[in-house]
Amino acid sequence: MLTELRRVIEKVAQASSFEEAIHFLVSEVRATMKVDCCSVYQADNQHQQLLLRGSDGLAQSAVGRSTIGFDEGVVGLVARREEPLNIADVYQHPSFKYLPEAGEDSFKSFLGTPIIYHRELLGVLVVQQSHIRSFSDTEEAFLITLAAHLSSTLRHVNLSDVIQQPQQLQRAAIRGIAGASGIAMADGWVYQLPVDLSELELVSTTQIDTELTLLEKAVAQTHIDIEKMSQRLSGQLPRDVLSIFKVYQGMLNDASFIKSLRLKIKQGYSAISALQLVYHDYLDQFEALSDSYLRERAVDLKDLCQRILLNLMPSKHNQMPTHRFILVAEEVTATMLGDIPRDKLVGVIARQGTSSSHAAILARTMGIPAVVGVSANVELLEQRFLIVDGYNGTIFVEPDSLLCSEYRQLLRQEKVMNAQINQELQQAAVTIDGHSIELLVNAGLSTDAGRAESVADGVGLYRTEVPFLLQNRFPSETEQYQSYSRILASYHGKTVCMRTLDIGGDKQLPYFPIHEENPFLGWRGIRMTLDHPEIFLLQCRAMYRAALEYSNLSIMLPMISSIQEVEQASALLDRAWNEIIEEFGSGKVFQRPALGVMLEVPSALLILPELAEHVAFWSVGSNDLTQYLLAVDRNNKRVSNIYSSCHPAVIRSLDFIRRESQRFNIPVSVCGEMAGDPLGAIALLVLGYQRLSMSSFNLARIKYLIRRVSLTELQCLRSRLLAAPSTDAVNTLLLDYVEQQGLMNLVRGYRQE
Amino acid sequence: MLTELRRVIEKVAQASSFEEAIHFLVSEVRATMKVDCCSVYQADNQHQQLLLRGSDGLAQSAVGRSTIGFDEGVVGLVARREEPLNIADVYQHPSFKYLPEAGEDSFKSFLGTPIIYHRELLGVLVVQQSHIRSFSDTEEAFLITLAAHLSSTLRHVNLSDVIQQPQQLQRAAIRGIAGASGIAMADGWVYQLPVDLSELELVSTTQIDTELTLLEKAVAQTHIDIEKMSQRLSGQLPRDVLSIFKVYQGMLNDASFIKSLRLKIKQGYSAISALQLVYHDYLDQFEALSDSYLRERAVDLKDLCQRILLNLMPSKHNQMPTHRFILVAEEVTATMLGDIPRDKLVGVIARQGTSSSHAAILARTMGIPAVVGVSANVELLEQRFLIVDGYNGTIFVEPDSLLCSEYRQLLRQEKVMNAQINQELQQAAVTIDGHSIELLVNAGLSTDAGRAESVADGVGLYRTEVPFLLQNRFPSETEQYQSYSRILASYHGKTVCMRTLDIGGDKQLPYFPIHEENPFLGWRGIRMTLDHPEIFLLQCRAMYRAALEYSNLSIMLPMISSIQEVEQASALLDRAWNEIIEEFGSGKVFQRPALGVMLEVPSALLILPELAEHVAFWSVGSNDLTQYLLAVDRNNKRVSNIYSSCHPAVIRSLDFIRRESQRFNIPVSVCGEMAGDPLGAIALLVLGYQRLSMSSFNLARIKYLIRRVSLTELQCLRSRLLAAPSTDAVNTLLLDYVEQQGLMNLVRGYRQE
Repeated sequence: MLTELRRVIEKVAQASSFEEAIHFLVSEVRATMKVDCCSVYQADNQHQQLLLRGSDGLAQSAVGRSTIGFDEGVVGLVARREEPLNIADVYQHPSFKYLPEAGEDSFKSFLGTPIIYHRELLGVLVVQQSHIRSFSDTEEAFLITLAAHLSSTLRHVNLSDVIQQPQQLQRAAIRGIAGASGIAMADGWVYQLPVDLSELELVSTTQIDTELTLLEKAVAQTHIDIEKMSQRLSGQLPRDVLSIFKVYQGMLNDASFIKSLRLKIKQGYSAISALQLVYHDYLDQFEALSDSYLRERAVDLKDLCQRILLNLMPSKHNQMPTHRFILVAEEVTATMLGDIPRDKLVGVIARQGTSSSHAAILARTMGIPAVVGVSANVELLEQRFLIVDGYNGTIFVEPDSLLCSEYRQLLRQEKVMNAQINQELQQAAVTIDGHSIELLVNAGLSTDAGRAESVADGVGLYRTEVPFLLQNRFPSETEQYQSYSRILASYHGKTVCMRTLDIGGDKQLPYFPIHEENPFLGWRGIRMTLDHPEIFLLQCRAMYRAALEYSNLSIMLPMISSIQEVEQASALLDRAWNEIIEEFGSGKVFQRPALGVMLEVPSALLILPELAEHVAFWSVGSNDLTQYLLAVDRNNKRVSNIYSSCHPAVIRSLDFIRRESQRFNIPVSVCGEMAGDPLGAIALLVLGYQRLSMSSFNLARIKYLIRRVSLTELQCLRSRLLAAPSTDAVNTLLLDYVEQQGLMNLVRGYRQE
Repeated sequence: MLTELRRVIEKVAQASSFEEAIHFLVSEVRATMKVDCCSVYQADNQHQQLLLRGSDGLAQSAVGRSTIGFDEGVVGLVARREEPLNIADVYQHPSFKYLPEAGEDSFKSFLGTPIIYHRELLGVLVVQQSHIRSFSDTEEAFLITLAAHLSSTLRHVNLSDVIQQPQQLQRAAIRGIAGASGIAMADGWVYQLPVDLSELELVSTTQIDTELTLLEKAVAQTHIDIEKMSQRLSGQLPRDVLSIFKVYQGMLNDASFIKSLRLKIKQGYSAISALQLVYHDYLDQFEALSDSYLRERAVDLKDLCQRILLNLMPSKHNQMPTHRFILVAEEVTATMLGDIPRDKLVGVIARQGTSSSHAAILARTMGIPAVVGVSANVELLEQRFLIVDGYNGTIFVEPDSLLCSEYRQLLRQEKVMNAQINQELQQAAVTIDGHSIELLVNAGLSTDAGRAESVADGVGLYRTEVPFLLQNRFPSETEQYQSYSRILASYHGKTVCMRTLDIGGDKQLPYFPIHEENPFLGWRGIRMTLDHPEIFLLQCRAMYRAALEYSNLSIMLPMISSIQEVEQASALLDRAWNEIIEEFGSGKVFQRPALGVMLEVPSALLILPELAEHVAFWSVGSNDLTQYLLAVDRNNKRVSNIYSSCHPAVIRSLDFIRRESQRFNIPVSVCGEMAGDPLGAIALLVLGYQRLSMSSFNLARIKYLIRRVSLTELQCLRSRLLAAPSTDAVNTLLLDYVEQQGLMNLVRGYRQE
């Protein structure tokens, strides 16, 4: 059975179009099950009917033409009931109706099963036979299994179909993951390598000196290109992120790499062939490695070699459109963005990636609307007019004029709104009834230095991972000390709350890979650092050294789930502090930075009385807290619809935390994305939170919002908010308020779902 | 930097022994860092000293001999402080002390870093140079990164070292995962394939008829062997599990497989060579598949072909020891267990696997103590005397006599206890102060049919996955209906609570694979079935059909995180019920089975008031609840120490659930492993739970326990239990009580950690 199942599935997966997939499916099933007829009906939910999309056994003239209503016949019954139906003699069935134009009248027995993909009925798969017979359990089970297994394949192929025939479904949206918020409207431009290093033929030469000169020039030019990219992005990306270009420069400077290239030329190969040969040698080496991170570095190597190649074949340079466009690529890299002038790039679409992937982070940092994780043949988007809705991760292909004008309207409103928001950036975050709300910034990956320092009340969450993530080794104590000092200096007079190293989960250190089945439930945050005290101590020492000069530091521990972890971390922190005082204190007395914890693991919420005895403050990490409370990985497209910080369980937990904080007199803040989302921020204000930490982009919006609401009024909503039984009910309540205040423009983006 | 790091790491990983790893390490580091000396000191925590284990630069005569105390010299300081130390001139350092016998006096500058693996100091890595100089940040960072990265490699190689030299560390335990509880003491026997199909040379023949006959006989014999295995295990494994043997028989009956074999012989190959060739053809096909499950079926294919091969080369049959032994294997399969007479097999060790892997489930079902996931070179355990402690996942290699006698004592106590427990099996589960506790059985995977029906008060959790997991396709409605009817009939008069299909997470359907980054936070349980109503409806229909004949069914939904999910599932259940009544009800009136939910996703705990309006009962799934509350995957060895159902957060959540259940008058039970663990059961009784569901093995023990405790007394402990601030405090409290009652024997197994 498994062999047959496998054969059909593999065959269908190889199809290059929807038509072909259907064709393969019906013929394979007919042959395998030895039946007289196999047909596929495609559901058209808009018209509540099923279209015969393919058949092996019915008249081909009916394919693509014959339809049957959801309320008609046994096929309609399968669709309506979403259940398989096994009928020995359809002529006896009360719902019987046949398609005469398809020659269906010759078939008596019927077995049909719905094809369902994530609750959506895609169609009905039917087998029929001329004589009266009941299909066996095995046959029934085979068809059900096949339909369930194939639904994702059919759905996928169908997507390409939609892209190719947009006239049929003009409002068909392609769904991906919201990578960076905002709306973009322009033609798609698919970023492709103009020549492929692997596809060139080897060429020998006798002009060794010429080729050596060519190589030298190309390498020098690549150096310059990468330097240019780095400079082009330097205003838009933080220094830490830019260090990816240093990795490339490092490869270019690698003596053995250049030596190997020169050697191949001396052996009589052209510069291009030498590059090919050396690239493949290196690639083999990389790919033979057991370490998956290092294996992935082969991608960087390829990218770099391609760039050298381009400089050896200048005529092959990529033709970039002259107008503004939406960048479409398999994976979006920093060098791609470095290639494109910022004023041409209005949006980004990537087939790969999640909301926390490199591409999404880059797009967010640069303020470019992005949809990632599209998992469709994105090359089909070339030169199509597209709408990228980065608020909810949707792409529209050649949308009709009505949809276009709706989105144009949104874009205009966005512009007006942004101007207003920027005007008020330097104002105080005070509600209309005079309550000050402390607005802090989340820094680290997306710090747009020079802007947040003046408008934020401090740093609510400084992610110390960045120097760790973008290096080839653990940073030394001195390197960390310098980095921490810089950030403390730039926020002089305002508190900077630094979180100790929080790797694991979806954050992997290149030089310290962790392979786990469920990384979000694995060795991350404090769990890893407590197991490696030598790394933790080094970081604590570096932080404390910086704190001797700047008094605005506080330290926060991630992923705390028990008191023991706090005790163990405290013991190491004590050691580090005493050492630093002894080594650098010169006998003076210093104020030790306050210690706090992240509230993100649900168990922490149940030991707040004990935690309160150990720490000076805490901050809610609403992303992870939501993720764990709902047991959902928000990067997983299959279940991301379940993830919402407006789930009643999250709202009630947040209320509990706020009350407990008051009871134990512990300062509390929220530093997850919820705090930077207008609806989320309103919910937090309703619950009594007065200290919110968010990205500097969101800080401006939230400040604008706060200056237009009344805290007294909001807090009257508390009991209704707590009573709301579902995510929808919570959202409706919050939206109603926003609408009453005339602030819908601020949340419009969040309401496209 | 990454290139050098990679080179050193790869080199060390290739070492075949600890000595060699150290040798590679010091010479590579010395060459890479261009220093005059690199040395590794191994920590001996028992004697609080460091042993020079390898050096490139110091006198070789000192290696393996020279030691330095943790309180001596700069090396001792690195170990003590667990921090790197960078000293330009050690002669000026207050802690300075050198090893004259090693020729260390010629070195002035020093850079040392601790090697730490999961909090355990393994040693110190040192580089030295003759002249006075300060090592750079880059050098320091390189050494730290190297030490952190290599710690697991060194730890691993060291383990083999321990196995090979047990005389040095006689109480050295190898840690794995507790697969099946119990203690086993015997020699290890490594299960190895006597001939490897891939290693034989091809042989041609002219005696085609002889070879055809040989083949026919071998295939027939393999049929018989597999039938025998299946029969041998049939008393010990439930029918569902045994169906794995049907998969093998199915392959043997596959016409195209046998035809291919015969064809090769007719082409002139010997039967053995024909087998080889066909195996490789099939393997290539399997391995080319994109579906990972099907790719893994290559393992079954290999196993089967090996068994045919054995019957073609009868002299090569595996020599099994004549005495009782502990089975040691890379992976433990059902056919291996089928090969071994039950009375010879006292324990199981598997290099692969987790507590929920097939091997662990088989061992638990058969009552054989097992340790899985050992991740050491298990072949080294051949003919070594071993203790397998299946309670805490520990293996001792050639333990000293003291440890042996301790374990023998435990084994004796276990025996006595088991006899007592079995004596009381038919008695009522009533506490000494007269309170009845309802004891239910968790059935499905480990149902030892014929035993639980009479002693349990019903089935608290029937896992419906089994017919799904061990098939090649979704079971049909009729197949499911028959399976459910059987179980309802066998528990006639007692309630059977069936959980709807709960796949995903670590339970994958062979024919419906789900690939996810974090499967425990993914598309599992109700999430998957709501997305595939055709599968859910079929199961509900089958359940309801069975319920028309037997009135003892109730239905439970897994992984519920919101009210919407309950509402959506209810709507489908309503549909199924109405259909079944219409189709099979013959106009009679039936009592519809009650609907309940699992409480395992933390968010469910925060919407109990709403849930109470929708369901008739609920049951706490303490395993998953603990997992999510603590954000820890208990199958992940790196963090499994954090997992405990006695964490205060779990205890307090359980108390909350019990109180809310009372408030809303909703019957509550606990069906996780906690209920079947003596300490866990006591905690639940303290909190007021009176309905516990567990495996039938544990049911006997818990009944014995209940008949010796006073509920009144236990419930006096409640406020102290709720106040306990840590897992340790909870455990201590419960153990104190157990000790007072003279019941330590019952929990001894759980206290080996």
